[in-house]
Parts: sequence; structure tokens; C-alpha cells
Amino acid sequence: MNRTIGLLGGGQLGQMLCEAANPLGINVVVLDQENSPAKRVTAGSHINGSFTDPEKIRELAKRVELLTVEIEHVDTEVLEELANEGVEIQPSWKTIRTIQDKFLQKSHLEKNGVSTAVSKEVVADEAGLQEIGKELGFPFMLKSRKDAYDGRGNFPVKSPADIKEALETLKNRALYAEKWANFRMELAVMVVKTEDATSTESIGTIAYPAVETIHEDSVCKLVYLPPRGIPIKIQKQAQDLARKAVGSLWGKGVFGVELFLMHDGKLVVNEIAPRPHNSGHYTIEACPTMSQYKSQLLSILGNMPNFANSVIPSVIPAAIMLNILGGREETSHNEIMERAIAIPNASLHMYGKQSKPGRKIGHITVVASSISEAESLMSPLITLAGNMHAERKGHDLNSVPQHQIIPSPSHPLVAVTMGSDSDLAVLKPGLALLQSLDIPFHCTITSAHRTPQRMMDFASSAVDNGFKVIIAAAGGAAHLPGMVAACTPLPVIGVPVKGSSLDGMDSLLSIVQMPRGVPVATVSINNSINAALLAARILGASDETIRFKVEKYAADSQEEVLGKADRLEEIGFAKYLEKK
Amino acid sequence: MNRTIGLLGGGQLGQMLCEAANPLGINVVVLDQENSPAKRVTAGSHINGSFTDPEKIRELAKRVELLTVEIEHVDTEVLEELANEGVEIQPSWKTIRTIQDKFLQKSHLEKNGVSTAVSKEVVADEAGLQEIGKELGFPFMLKSRKDAYDGRGNFPVKSPADIKEALETLKNRALYAEKWANFRMELAVMVVKTEDATSTESIGTIAYPAVETIHEDSVCKLVYLPPRGIPIKIQKQAQDLARKAVGSLWGKGVFGVELFLMHDGKLVVNEIAPRPHNSGHYTIEACPTMSQYKSQLLSILGNMPNFANSVIPSVIPAAIMLNILGGREETSHNEIMERAIAIPNASLHMYGKQSKPGRKIGHITVVASSISEAESLMSPLITLAGNMHAERKGHDLNSVPQHQIIPSPSHPLVAVTMGSDSDLAVLKPGLALLQSLDIPFHCTITSAHRTPQRMMDFASSAVDNGFKVIIAAAGGAAHLPGMVAACTPLPVIGVPVKGSSLDGMDSLLSIVQMPRGVPVATVSINNSINAALLAARILGASDETIRFKVEKYAADSQEEVLGKADRLEEIGFAKYLEKK
Repeated sequence: MNRTIGLLGGGQLGQMLCEAANPLGINVVVLDQENSPAKRVTAGSHINGSFTDPEKIRELAKRVELLTVEIEHVDTEVLEELANEGVEIQPSWKTIRTIQDKFLQKSHLEKNGVSTAVSKEVVADEAGLQEIGKELGFPFMLKSRKDAYDGRGNFPVKSPADIKEALETLKNRALYAEKWANFRMELAVMVVKTEDATSTESIGTIAYPAVETIHEDSVCKLVYLPPRGIPIKIQKQAQDLARKAVGSLWGKGVFGVELFLMHDGKLVVNEIAPRPHNSGHYTIEACPTMSQYKSQLLSILGNMPNFANSVIPSVIPAAIMLNILGGREETSHNEIMERAIAIPNASLHMYGKQSKPGRKIGHITVVASSISEAESLMSPLITLAGNMHAERKGHDLNSVPQHQIIPSPSHPLVAVTMGSDSDLAVLKPGLALLQSLDIPFHCTITSAHRTPQRMMDFASSAVDNGFKVIIAAAGGAAHLPGMVAACTPLPVIGVPVKGSSLDGMDSLLSIVQMPRGVPVATVSINNSINAALLAARILGASDETIRFKVEKYAADSQEEVLGKADRLEEIGFAKYLEKK
Repeated sequence: MNRTIGLLGGGQLGQMLCEAANPLGINVVVLDQENSPAKRVTAGSHINGSFTDPEKIRELAKRVELLTVEIEHVDTEVLEELANEGVEIQPSWKTIRTIQDKFLQKSHLEKNGVSTAVSKEVVADEAGLQEIGKELGFPFMLKSRKDAYDGRGNFPVKSPADIKEALETLKNRALYAEKWANFRMELAVMVVKTEDATSTESIGTIAYPAVETIHEDSVCKLVYLPPRGIPIKIQKQAQDLARKAVGSLWGKGVFGVELFLMHDGKLVVNEIAPRPHNSGHYTIEACPTMSQYKSQLLSILGNMPNFANSVIPSVIPAAIMLNILGGREETSHNEIMERAIAIPNASLHMYGKQSKPGRKIGHITVVASSISEAESLMSPLITLAGNMHAERKGHDLNSVPQHQIIPSPSHPLVAVTMGSDSDLAVLKPGLALLQSLDIPFHCTITSAHRTPQRMMDFASSAVDNGFKVIIAAAGGAAHLPGMVAACTPLPVIGVPVKGSSLDGMDSLLSIVQMPRGVPVATVSINNSINAALLAARILGASDETIRFKVEKYAADSQEEVLGKADRLEEIGFAKYLEKK
């Protein structure tokens, strides 16, 4: 592209930005200390110095088309001056200044109708904090307005007894208080802003997928794509809220939006970073033609392509990112590196930084066809990282409980429902088969006639709940499969259950003879085995692993019949019947 | 990984190798001219000089753990000496020397049971070539044994009249002759070799997917993943043959294997490159955790992970790679760069080389959910590249026919079959619906009773032919759907066709009442619309675009009924019936 940009900061985010810039022919001039990570991957001529030094920033501005940042702790005074002199700065110094002061950031978001945690200005003495405690309740968070990151500058005030220590720990800093967020899960969404102007309608913003983030010691430890067990609807709401938040800011670029999903299902924005973000590293592999780094480059240069529905999709179903933090020894991380390299679906990203205890020195991204597959690949690495953490903290590995990884249950792909619990006996062999094929399912009861609303809610939310196929069993005037099919675009398999009259013909015809427009995939009467196998075939049409299981089932069935044939030929029909 | 390797050559392949090495913490010391592309992306200390200079190669060897290449035109004498002195060279100098001499390469492959084009030693004078022409037939290819690439060093001898010019063009070179390969398609497979020893059973080799390559002026122009219209079975055969070929060589590393698919379906190896290859660039995006560059690094260092079935799968369904060759002017390629950047699913890779007419200066990879989607994204860029080519060749763009892009038909996802052409009338509405939903299908006749073998062949090859769902219609003793289901792991939708007796009940029960183990997804009698919609729902379970179409169909149906309801309420039942 023959373009040159100036970057304030040369850490790992700058490094990955440069790695994205090289193939695009974009020249990045980095302002940071000598030998900083970003300079290691671009042989160009950089500037040595501090990204908070106004003179160095001015020197950088002279050499490039525009300035951008990989860290928000920069001098916005000089950026404002430069902007007034006509230098382009992306995102705007105004956005960086607003974000630098977390209280200002929260007030800005509130003013723009973006839900955030309730925040209060504080009088930073004991009386003032007692007052706040009454207002927000205990516990609350006492936070530095500025220069706070990775948990530094935050103090959880659990009771009035903590106030003294909190004030001592955060002395000489401008403070504010935040209501305690009793969240169910932390989510994050990367958002690209492509227009200079602010927008209250998210115009000019594009969202990456929502991800789940796990923090340890207030530092991001793990990122899960997609968030585990969270309905697609909420993931979309998180994207929308993140777009709205970023739309309210000035200038262009990529933004990391951290959110809390509360227990009541509400979403609030926690905070925003005006740059690539730890929670967006996964995009390098999951969005291989548009990583967060490429989108920062293209958006600030005004070259971001259009994306349908303002969403940058992931090309893979699931990913997990694990940060590598420096261990007790400089070589503590060697084992985790080696183990990561031995995983076929893993990418190792080392930042070329000297290892220090707790320092972010690299990360690992694992991609997979499901989150449970990604978890089983990543699980040994998470254990290793847990050991490194315990060792760093000086814990005795033998006596201290290991960092517990609770494997998330596999997301169910098949929803199985029935009109009545009396149908369960018929479904049992099919459910057992799904289990033995290792296909996760969810089983429930939704009567078309006795719980019509529940049945419709179940069917119409099936896509958002991540199901891919539905099995519905019913007998008599068997309306359930057809009614479910009328309320979902998913394939519905109908199992006619034989009732007390008509030998099941009533159920069969009620299920199979659907009118034009609403198909039910009907299997034979009482044959839940075939319903389960059909579900497996449907999933297997786009998932080779499941298709191989269907093939193996068929091969095993053939073996069984061949064995019987051999025996019959060997011992003759009479003995065969006798011994059966 | 804290490891250091030495690279002979610093062109674009070396550049992308360094881009893969940086995040792994692998240090690459490059031997090539100052400012070569690979040096641009790594700030380390490199060696300036020629990768054919024995002194420089020795200097490099002293600084690194092992030597590797990004180009095969290196000095193998000094590599052999170094190997004897204990320096590790990957792949072996023996492999590089064998490959450098194309005649030696072909003889080696033949000796190891790998099919190649028939090659003959030649006496390089008119009589000798006359003799060869009689033996191989005209046309044949006269080729340099060494230093030939991108078509340089090849001369097609179409008739005896060409012999003089051929000898003049290739004078002072060691030559051999090759039988003309009248191929249907050129394929390529990247193969990773993880063991030092040679193997006749492909042990220690891993294959990337097979791709289709299109050459222009003997230079690779386009790469298609997967190859268009080629059965999966042949793609697997290509992977197997490529693995066998690479298994016969010495040492570790990544290899590009070019093959011809002949008109009779046979595969022959054309030639092998002992390094990353133009036909493997797509792996950067399609295999985002294991590009060909990463696999070269890990294999030569002995750290390549294991892959199931010895195959590195693509995580995306389709990709196209287009090379950017320098145009007539130094700025001719600016437009294609800009257009590439404007495509959301495209990655631009510029090599930082000065543009010269015909020089490879970059490439573009587009990824998509189908090859036809990739084609429609890439098509304008291919036209631009065609214009650049014509301009470079001095053709008048207005008078010379443009480079023609024949869009490949979409690969059919649904196979529709019937027991007799009398069923076609019943299937017609369903086929029309598939068309209107833009779901590609293949329609045929396979009678279970009159063409049993054909029916079984059809069903058992359906997966290899890329189908995801089968619709089978039959009437009376309607065995077709069930028999098809017995011969494939794919979901089979059965359409009972109403015959002259029993009102269709015979067909329905013959199709739906399948025994345990072999399900048929049965729809109502004569209802091909529902069969088509069920196929769409099955595809839509894993393809959002198709699911949206199913949702739209349902919404349209609802609209239609609501319109009728309005009208009925407005004009009353009597008038409504009158006007109908």
C-alpha cells in the first residue's frame, strides 16, 4: 500500500500490528525503547525513546502520515497540539483522553445510553468512603481514575475495615468508586470503527464475535470463542452493546470492549481499550483474512472493507487463547512452549520479551471444531500454566490445591423432546445411541396440546440455543413434531409412538403427512434408534468426525449380521433356532 | 523456541518463513543480497552475499544449528562437504541435488515406483532429437536438466521443424526430453517430511489438501482449493502419490509436489520443489495454525506435531490464490492491491520487491464457504491481472480478447434420484424450489430393481462426490430410498410417490418403515416441496446463509396466508369462494 504510519508503543500489540503490516506493504515507524518487541519484526528505521515524551512524539509525527497507539497511556496533550497543527491521530486524542480516565470513560458511556457499572466520584478520605459504602453497599471497588491496567490501581473494599488499607494502597491517585459487579461471566468484543464522527446508532462500527474472558489476579488468562453456554442471542446483544459504546467515541481504529454478563441476563460495559486487545488475539487464527491488527491498520487508513451485517465472522467454530505469563525462573515457560508446539491445532506467539514473573511474554491459540474439542486440546496447557502460577506465587505444588479446570459440558447439538413422559421408554434406545456416539443432546418434554406456549418457545429458540437438529416423539394425534417444525428452520425428526389403538398408524400419519412448506423427517414407528442415526447423519453431512461414526456403526451392523450368517450356515437352521 | 536456523535465499518464500518464525521465537539468519525480502521482516543480523557462494554458506553454517533452503539452486558441493563435517542440512543435500537435475529427479521417482511423465536422455543434435521425436511422438518437451524454473529452460518441440530453434534456444545446457503430457488438470500437494530416512510406504510424511493450479506463460497464476469438479477420491489419490514421492527423498522439510491429472483419471508427478511452494501460499489462511512455512520450520527442527490420518486439513471450505506479477509500469499493480484490500475475505501479501514486468511481487488469497463464492470474489481481480498481463505483453486491450474466466459451476450439494422417470413429475416442484433457493443439485435416475449395481455405486460414491444430502423418490414397493440409505452415511430423504393402487400407502410404508440401523427421513406422499425444504434445513443446520433462506421461505408462506385471511375477513366466505 506504500503507506507509513507512526506507532506509539512497541510492545506485543505493536509487534503483532507490524506482523500484519508487513505483507500489506504498510511501513510502521515505532516509537519505544530500543529492542522493543515491535522493532524485532520490522527491519525499518524506528525511533528510540518513550511514547510519553512529547519531543519524540513530534519527531515521529514528522516522519509519518498519521499516528496511532498500541497503548493508551500516552501524552494526549501533545497529541491534541499536533491535531491542532493538522496531524492525523487515530483514534482521536479525545477518545484516548476519555478512556485514560476510567471515571470519565464511564460517565461518557452513561451519557450515551450505554449501560455500565454504577460509578461515583469519591472524597478520598475515611468519611468519604464510609459514605460511598452506604450508597453503593459493601463490597465496592475503589479504583484509580488513571494509569490502571491488569488490576493495578484497583482495590476491592469488602467492608468498612478495608477502607484504611485501600486509601494507603491507592494514595496520591485520583480515585472513584464502582458498585460491585456480581456478574455471571466476563465477555469481550473487538469493535472496528471506520468513521471519524461519533454515532449514536453504531453507524461505521463492525463487531468481531463475542468471547468469554477469564481473569486471574486481574490479568486476562483465557479467552473462549464462543462464550461457553451463552445463547447466541446474548452474544449478539453483546456485539450490539459494544458497537454502540465504540460508536460514541471519536476517530477510527480497533477497540477492545470488556463487558459483564449479569445473573439476570443484562449486559454492562466494564471498560474499553482504544487499540488491539488481549481478548482479540484469537482473531489471528479465527479470522485469518482480517485479524484485529489488520483491521486497525485498514480502519485508521480509511481502507476497511464492508462486512455484511457489520460483523466480522470467525471462520472456525471454536478457539481458546491462553496467555503465557513469565514464571518464577526465566526458563519456567519452556515446557509450555514445547507442549504448545506439539499440538497440531495450536499457534504459539512469543513476544521476544525477557521473561519476568507475571509478565505477559506470549500466548497460545488453539482452534477446533467445537469448544469441547478445543478444551481437551488446551487442558494440559492450562494445567501447566496453573503450575507456573502457583510456583510464581511461592505455593508448594504438592500442598496447594491445583488451579481447577472445570470442563464445560459439550454444547448440545441435538434437542430431543416428547409429548409425554410415557414416550420416554420408546426414546431410550435412541438416547443411549446418541450417548454412545458421543453426540451431546438435551432432552425435555413439550406437549403440543398441554403446553403449547412452552412448545413454541422451545422450537423458536432452538437456533439461538445452538441446536442443529431436533428429534420429537409423539403418539396418537401426534402434533408435536409438525408443530415444532412450524416454529424452527432446523430439521425436525419425527418419531411416531405406537399408542393403544390403530397400531401406531394414527401417530405415523399425523407426523408424516405434513402439508407443503413444513417438512418433518419421519422415521418408522417406535424407532428411536433410527431417529438418533438420522440426527447423526444430518450432523455428519458437515462434520467428518460424526460421519466416520455413522460409517463405523454401519460396518459394525454388517459384522453382526455376517457373524449370524456364519453361525446359521455352520450349525443349520434347526439348532440355530433351538439355541437362540 | 530459542533456536537459530540458517536460510539459503531471502526471497518471498524466505520472507514468509521468517514471518512464521518470529512468533515461534525461532531466529532465522538469512544469506542473500542486502535488502532481500526476508531481511525486511526480521531485524536480526543477517549475511549479505550469494546463496551459491561456498564461503558465505560456510560463514552461515558457523552461526546456526542447521541449514535449510528457500530455493533449490544452491551449491550442493559445499552442502555435501558441510554435511560430512557434521553440519545438519534439511532437507539433505542429496535431495536438493537430485531435484536440481530434473532428469535425475524423474529417474529417481520412477525407480521408486512413482508415476511421472516418460523422460528420455537425449543426444543434443538434430539426429538425436529426430530419434526422440520418433520414440516419444511429436509434440514433446525439450528440457534443461538444471536451473530451469517458471518455464525458463523448457522448449515445446511441436514438429521436426522446431528442432533447430529448440537446440539454439537451449544451447550449452544439459538436456533431456519428456513425453507430452496431455493432462486434464494440473494439481499440487504440499507434503511435510518429518523423518530423515527415506520410506517406500510414505511413513513420516503428512499431506496438505490437493489444489488445482493454473499456469500462464509457464508461471503459476492461480491456485484453487479444492480443485474444481474433481472427486474427493482423486484428491486423496493425489495426496497419497505426493506423499509417496516425498517419502522417497532424504531428510526433513516441506515439499511442493506438482502433478498432472490425465484424461483417463491417472495421476503422474510432474516435479517436486524441496521447499515451500507457490501452490502452498493458501495454507497461511486455510491452515491458520500450520502454514507450509510453520511446517517447514517445525519439521526441520524435529518438532512437527502428529496429524490424524497424516493429513493437515484446511479449516475453510474453499480458497483461491492469485499471484501478482509486476506490470508494464512500476505502479501497474496499485489497482489490484487496492481492490484486494477492499475484499473482506481477502489477504494481500506483498513481498516488498521492486516491481519489474512479470516478476512475482505479491499474491492475494481469498477464502470463502464455497469455491463459487471464492470465484465471484476473486473474479474482478483475475480480470485486472489479465489486463496487466496483456499490457505487459504489449497487447492492445481493446483489440485483444480478454483473459476469459469461465466460472465453474457450483458443486452440487444435493443428489436427487428416482426409481423411474415417471417420478419426475412429482419431483418437479421440489427441484424448482431447490433452484429458487439457489441450492445446487444433481438429478438422476437409479432404479433399485432394474439398475441395482448403478444404484449402489451412486449411493456409495455420494460422499466422495461431495454431496451432503440425498433425495430419493419411488412408488409402489418403493425400495430405492431405503437401499440408498443402506449404502451411504449421508442423510437420505424419501419421497413416497402415489401409484395406481392403495393411494400411496404402499410407497409410504415401504419407505418409512425401515428396520433399526438404517433411517430414511420420510416426507408426505408426493410432497417433493417438503423434501427440498428438508434438504435445505439439513444444509442450513451448518450453513447460516441457507438457514436464512429457510427462514425467509417460512416468513413468505406466513405472509401469503395472512393475505388470504385479510381477504376472507374483508369479502366474506361466499365471495371468497366465488372469486377463487
